[in-house]
Amino acid sequence: MTYGRGPNGERTESRGGGGLATALRGLVEQHDTTWIANAMTDEDRVVAGERQHGTMLLAQDPDAYARFYNVAANPTLWFLQHMLWNLGRTPDWDDERHDAWTNGYVPVNASMARAVVAELERDPDADVFFHDYHLYLAPAIVRREAPDAVMSHFVHVPWPETDAWSVLPEPLRRDVFAGLLANDVVGFHTDRWRRSFLRGCADVLGARVDGHVVEHEGRRTRVTAHPIGIDTAEFEALAAGEEVCARERELVASRTEMLVLRVDRTDPSKNVVRGLRAFGVMLERHPELRGRARMLALLDPSRQDIPEYADYVAAIEREAEKLGDCVDLRVGDDFARSVAAYKQFDALLVNAVFDGLNLVSKEAPYVNTRDGVLVLSENAGSHAELGEWALTVNPFDVSGQADALYVALTMKPEEKRRRLDAIRAHVRAHDVREWGELQMADLLRLRSRR
Amino acid sequence: MTYGRGPNGERTESRGGGGLATALRGLVEQHDTTWIANAMTDEDRVVAGERQHGTMLLAQDPDAYARFYNVAANPTLWFLQHMLWNLGRTPDWDDERHDAWTNGYVPVNASMARAVVAELERDPDADVFFHDYHLYLAPAIVRREAPDAVMSHFVHVPWPETDAWSVLPEPLRRDVFAGLLANDVVGFHTDRWRRSFLRGCADVLGARVDGHVVEHEGRRTRVTAHPIGIDTAEFEALAAGEEVCARERELVASRTEMLVLRVDRTDPSKNVVRGLRAFGVMLERHPELRGRARMLALLDPSRQDIPEYADYVAAIEREAEKLGDCVDLRVGDDFARSVAAYKQFDALLVNAVFDGLNLVSKEAPYVNTRDGVLVLSENAGSHAELGEWALTVNPFDVSGQADALYVALTMKPEEKRRRLDAIRAHVRAHDVREWGELQMADLLRLRSRR
Repeated sequence: MTYGRGPNGERTESRGGGGLATALRGLVEQHDTTWIANAMTDEDRVVAGERQHGTMLLAQDPDAYARFYNVAANPTLWFLQHMLWNLGRTPDWDDERHDAWTNGYVPVNASMARAVVAELERDPDADVFFHDYHLYLAPAIVRREAPDAVMSHFVHVPWPETDAWSVLPEPLRRDVFAGLLANDVVGFHTDRWRRSFLRGCADVLGARVDGHVVEHEGRRTRVTAHPIGIDTAEFEALAAGEEVCARERELVASRTEMLVLRVDRTDPSKNVVRGLRAFGVMLERHPELRGRARMLALLDPSRQDIPEYADYVAAIEREAEKLGDCVDLRVGDDFARSVAAYKQFDALLVNAVFDGLNLVSKEAPYVNTRDGVLVLSENAGSHAELGEWALTVNPFDVSGQADALYVALTMKPEEKRRRLDAIRAHVRAHDVREWGELQMADLLRLRSRR
Repeated sequence: MTYGRGPNGERTESRGGGGLATALRGLVEQHDTTWIANAMTDEDRVVAGERQHGTMLLAQDPDAYARFYNVAANPTLWFLQHMLWNLGRTPDWDDERHDAWTNGYVPVNASMARAVVAELERDPDADVFFHDYHLYLAPAIVRREAPDAVMSHFVHVPWPETDAWSVLPEPLRRDVFAGLLANDVVGFHTDRWRRSFLRGCADVLGARVDGHVVEHEGRRTRVTAHPIGIDTAEFEALAAGEEVCARERELVASRTEMLVLRVDRTDPSKNVVRGLRAFGVMLERHPELRGRARMLALLDPSRQDIPEYADYVAAIEREAEKLGDCVDLRVGDDFARSVAAYKQFDALLVNAVFDGLNLVSKEAPYVNTRDGVLVLSENAGSHAELGEWALTVNPFDVSGQADALYVALTMKPEEKRRRLDAIRAHVRAHDVREWGELQMADLLRLRSRR
């Protein structure tokens, strides 16, 4: 939940973006929960400290928060975990980056840990759930104050292998792994990221790894792999809703015969530039599709305060320009338009360089009405679940992506139907509720063993 | 051996550059060997097919060779194995790169394999040694023709972990791993690269890994770790030789009180730019060393036909310019000057992003006369051997490198002496002869088991 001020000065509430916020909202609604989050807007800071709708916002020092968010978490950890650093050139651990860690990432984690400890004092039997790459250090701080707390940490981004972690100087690298191992459970979306984490615990800390359990400093941490799902009921309602249908009518009125869709944040990990190139190569190879097929790229401009992200948007715009009116590039945040496009695509391109899971690859096929084909990167976490019904592409293989798009657009109807039905059945059977329940079950097992 | 024409049209011979050529020369001299190599110069192509001094040069189609060398091997595989790709942007597997693989890397490997098979027909009991990242496909081709050949492959570059290999589209990636596993022995410089290779065999091919043995398609491959050494006798002779001593006198006449040295190819993996920055940061933090300490960077400009390499030299020159006369940057190939500088350094900076071994970190301390201190990247292969006597740095941590350089320059004499003596004793005890013998022993064991 983020707070702002409306035109008449009244306090407004808006739900967080991405699928993570949705998924967590599910958990929060089903259980007696306190959601502790960092204040992001000025109004958030006013609300900070008040418990509202199960949410508690922490007021961070704005400078520390900027260092934490705009340097240490993004791009440093995000780029590391998505293998996006250009290691011959970037990053430098200069004074600024060291300062962002020491006086940004560390104190924000400490502040979060203090808030968790305060909650545990209020309710000693509470389970603690940490989420994602912003809070790797907090669990170890909580653990020192609350040795018996039941703590779980879900990492939503890829977990890269040991060499990639050398981007963090050794003491920081050890703190990240040790911080996570202060939890009782550490969860990832796929077995691939879990495998890399388990190997990394042995490589970086010399921890003992036995199956999916890591032993470090006398504590045992179970490492799980639970791919997140979507809220299928919500997406069914959204897809049938008036706003989406209005947007869909606009789209139907203007669309070409074949629609290639991508819906992403403008993050280098999403690989928009190579996707545009691939579409261009496909049109060169199959000029008969020119005018009949168009790419619609709906891009949410994220993290534009960070130079690497602003540069990437510029690169996207340059590449799209080369394709002229073969591509319809929309940079902006319009969720209803995205869902309308989900319903209308013939091919959905998800060619991420690396992606923890990729919710679009579940959301869009789930509400699609045209037996659209999913073209899916082998490096998206969802590939482990959906790969057999998708056309697999290598994210660096522009030529291969071009061929896959052509195969998708010219696939026999019954084959398209078969694949889409299978994806939908899988997404329905493994929705976000299951994901939440599996995590609660991990902790329940833990409590019952104690 | 490379051939050219002298001023009067006579054929000239020159030894290959780097330490690898030296090391192999040792093997060639000690055994009855045919060294098969690709022709690189026009004169090489004239000599091609003649067996001279145990060397046989293969004439490759110049276009295929250019694709093989300048695109597929460098930068594609080199950058992959040193983790230098900027994955959000490069590489693209477009038509050009696919063509470089299919019509460059594949046929050059096939041509090499044919030459090996011809040698095996001449001498069926010959052992076959493949070297490095240029020839990953050849062993599988030889194996099909000569199922009983005894084959070994030494990889001199780092072996990155599985995610990094996703830069190669899947069929190519599988061919690389399967090609190497057609050998009886695959060797690396360190246990770290061996570990990554073993994991990769399981991840990429689903091969069975038992300790250091990989089982794939009914064959067993032993994976070894033998760090290469230097020819200590040659370096002693070089260091005492007239040419080096003349160069040393020039250096002594012009040097500052403290000399920070680096000797590298101008390869992004060597991390010259960050090293220059670190030296600059050290001078900012310790202005009293300004004028007393200078960095001497002796850089061999390699692979300048490849844009990524030419760009990197430009970046080095820009960075050096900022430091004015605090840095003495020499771009050129002058081995005698390098050895003279080896004798004179007070701190040697080896801050490689990743490096298979790094021979400079052994050569330079071995002949140093000033109890100079080795500042060594944790990602250089030689760190596994020399780390305990070096100052370890993280290659991305410019601030940490600045601190390490200062510690090196201000270290107590007896501590410097102790460290350098230990490095020298290690280098002497584990020279290039040992490396050659260990590899021969691996094959002997194999033959005796058959």
